[in-house]
Amino acid sequence: MTGSSVEPAPVTVAVDANGADLGPAEVAAGASVAAGTGTRVLLFGPAAQLGPAPAGVTVIDAPVSIAKAPGPVAAVRATPEASIVQAARAVAAGEADALVAGGSTGAAVAAALFNVKRARGVYRPALAIEVPVPGAPVLMLDIGANVEVRPEHLVQFAFLGAAFSTGVLGVSRPRVALLSNGAEPSRGTPDLVAAHADLEAGAPYAGMEFVGNVEGTDVTAGAADVVVTDGFTGNVAIKLMEGVSQTVLGAIRAVAETSTRGRAGGLLLRPGLHDLRAGIDPERSGGAHILGLRSLGVVPHGRFTRVGYANAIAVAERGVRERVVERTQAALEAAGALRRAPSASTASVPDVP
Amino acid sequence: MTGSSVEPAPVTVAVDANGADLGPAEVAAGASVAAGTGTRVLLFGPAAQLGPAPAGVTVIDAPVSIAKAPGPVAAVRATPEASIVQAARAVAAGEADALVAGGSTGAAVAAALFNVKRARGVYRPALAIEVPVPGAPVLMLDIGANVEVRPEHLVQFAFLGAAFSTGVLGVSRPRVALLSNGAEPSRGTPDLVAAHADLEAGAPYAGMEFVGNVEGTDVTAGAADVVVTDGFTGNVAIKLMEGVSQTVLGAIRAVAETSTRGRAGGLLLRPGLHDLRAGIDPERSGGAHILGLRSLGVVPHGRFTRVGYANAIAVAERGVRERVVERTQAALEAAGALRRAPSASTASVPDVP
Repeated sequence: MTGSSVEPAPVTVAVDANGADLGPAEVAAGASVAAGTGTRVLLFGPAAQLGPAPAGVTVIDAPVSIAKAPGPVAAVRATPEASIVQAARAVAAGEADALVAGGSTGAAVAAALFNVKRARGVYRPALAIEVPVPGAPVLMLDIGANVEVRPEHLVQFAFLGAAFSTGVLGVSRPRVALLSNGAEPSRGTPDLVAAHADLEAGAPYAGMEFVGNVEGTDVTAGAADVVVTDGFTGNVAIKLMEGVSQTVLGAIRAVAETSTRGRAGGLLLRPGLHDLRAGIDPERSGGAHILGLRSLGVVPHGRFTRVGYANAIAVAERGVRERVVERTQAALEAAGALRRAPSASTASVPDVP
Repeated sequence: MTGSSVEPAPVTVAVDANGADLGPAEVAAGASVAAGTGTRVLLFGPAAQLGPAPAGVTVIDAPVSIAKAPGPVAAVRATPEASIVQAARAVAAGEADALVAGGSTGAAVAAALFNVKRARGVYRPALAIEVPVPGAPVLMLDIGANVEVRPEHLVQFAFLGAAFSTGVLGVSRPRVALLSNGAEPSRGTPDLVAAHADLEAGAPYAGMEFVGNVEGTDVTAGAADVVVTDGFTGNVAIKLMEGVSQTVLGAIRAVAETSTRGRAGGLLLRPGLHDLRAGIDPERSGGAHILGLRSLGVVPHGRFTRVGYANAIAVAERGVRERVVERTQAALEAAGALRRAPSASTASVPDVP
């Protein structure tokens, strides 16, 4: 509750309670935390497992889960009663302002795409994630919705990412870069080189600063606030970063366990390392973000606890309140980057796991 | 010197003394170390800066350097007197068995490709690097020679990598994987999916085990000994891994400097962390490897010291002695993966920095 004289209208978030490794009750616990901050939650899941709804949470009994379905796109199409599809439909119908659906990224993107639909002038939705760079998170997109992209898709991803960075992450004029194999504008695949030229030649837009290409080493060095790439490279990239981070931390833990001296050192460092781990905890960001649709979507990882779910709902709420979708639209319009005419290929189903 | 009754013929390595940040004398010092183990070195560089040649090292005065030329491919073409071009020509002429040229990967690949030439039946050379996974290095290729690849290129990279892994890294039957955005054979770009199908359908070959797709997190987890990818993704990948590794180690160093307690912990851990750093020291592997030509090439990083250069020469020597090029040829032949007919597009210049 703010101290201003006019209370803002509460934001309503549709949440799929299925898909969490810890079960629907854990999602309900996260929803309860979010409701405590004033967000309204429509919770779709098995009512029998969700317990009594706290104030601000409305439970809609939707016991059917497709979180573990092998073909998420087909499952979304074939299972209108699935909790995730019902949640997406609630957003499409205007009963909720944003979607939170964890566990299966593929199902979340498909359910959102088919029901919430693409925003006007947007070719394709993209999946974005905050790379937990200590001190200043970097937003990377696409991390898996589009294995193959055209230059105009990459250009739009730049604006989608910038609007989210400003609205939700509070970066006033994000530096936006293309991920490439060299800093020079000529480096990269032909599509990437074309996107670089388009972004450089585009109408000047005050909402972001295009800083050209960045290489892998630049991502964690904070050279850009938003890093744009295709969904194949982005997916490989975030998983590599996760793997290296885990491996290095694991190797250091091993060092701290191999000798009395090491154990003593590890004990002394433990509080500081705990802060470091907390700083790069993926639950902080609430998960991946579906950008480019008529409403925001947030996809918590299946292993998230109630904390990650509460954060996901908070991110969705902030995105609605900060009008990320409208910002994106305005930015694309100002930059002349809106899709001109619908084409068959743009209706393709995203290729996500 | 081995204890066997027949002494093996000494291997001769052509080394470019230009390109090292520490200067030609540092390269000469590395060559001297290698010569001390019985390898013969032809050292191409500015004789005036190289000092008296030790036993086993022959200095060829070649003062012209193109290591800092902005367009390495054009520079190689236009500068036949450049030390790197002379070194590559010595290999092509049979005066040396392998090439070591540091500093500019682009110049090294171009000089080798134009002079040493591709091995029979190989479409394109690839650049490979050992990812320093603690305990068991993983060979990744291509990391930058080919930004765009066709399925048959990826298939050949698998065999190039396997032969090097066996010959130089001592892995008897390397597990070879494709880097993708999911483990299922259907995941990835269409070219990657096609390469997966070809590798799975190909003639059984005892020299390697194709283990399918690996994701980013699997690379450092040791799921494969050889990881195959296109040069764009591979280049982004190794730089991301380097960046994350540096960032995590830097964050831990910062933790160990922020309090008396942290400083004490850091001091206790220092010997173990020193071993960890040594284990992931890029100088250990000698640099990147040029595979797919009629002779091996090794490209030390420009910042390497004499240690890295000596390792590069040792890797080249081992590759010659273990007949990596011949192994590659035999593997491609056995698997039916040799290029059938020359085509114009295969003569393209690699796109390296």
